[in-house]
Amino acid sequence: MNRHPVEIQIAKADKAIIAEDFDTLINIYTETAVLVVEPGRTVQGRDAIRKAFEAIAQYFKNGLQVKQNGMTILESGDTALVHANTVISAPNLPETERKAVYVFNKTKDGTWLCSIDNSYGNDIVKN
Amino acid sequence: MNRHPVEIQIAKADKAIIAEDFDTLINIYTETAVLVVEPGRTVQGRDAIRKAFEAIAQYFKNGLQVKQNGMTILESGDTALVHANTVISAPNLPETERKAVYVFNKTKDGTWLCSIDNSYGNDIVKN
Repeated sequence: MNRHPVEIQIAKADKAIIAEDFDTLINIYTETAVLVVEPGRTVQGRDAIRKAFEAIAQYFKNGLQVKQNGMTILESGDTALVHANTVISAPNLPETERKAVYVFNKTKDGTWLCSIDNSYGNDIVKN
Repeated sequence: MNRHPVEIQIAKADKAIIAEDFDTLINIYTETAVLVVEPGRTVQGRDAIRKAFEAIAQYFKNGLQVKQNGMTILESGDTALVHANTVISAPNLPETERKAVYVFNKTKDGTWLCSIDNSYGNDIVKN
């Protein structure tokens, strides 16, 4: 079964996060991408996302692990919505599964880039 | 506080669903919009979405009620991701809250239209 190009991008991003290869990582995001750092706190743009990931790497003792435990992709035109069970762990964090949501947009050259990265899913909803 | 234009579109859609005003409803969706009818089953395009909502209305004894119990909108360029606690009820359904996810795209004339409608949220993930 062929993997969806978005799934391949997510696998590449996970590998880059684990390797702390932030050059590769930020190029998987659009120029105006939004990253939810924690509920109530977002950063926008590649530079800000790089800084956030550098801080996250440090926070997790340079030992953050990320993997996907199932995902479903819905595609409409140049937009794709990803629901994923994202499992993270680190020296100071036992395995934790998040109901993550990612939005990807297809660029003119056919590459899918992440425009919205919310690993917290519905936890960010304010009542 | 000004409401986000996407929030206004969602309120309009909820009102149209309750009124079974499907002409108004389908024009809130993009031409290639995807609707999750139930986990594992999607329909695509305005005609298919109209038919699905007609069937849903009938299934719920023409008494479907929809409201939003909190939502958070993340915007990046012409794409917006909505996490909402969507509450539905009907003569044959007690109040049920779903952790819904909607994606909207901004058209060239500045109107936000729904491209992906997944009221089931993470429940659609296949392991």
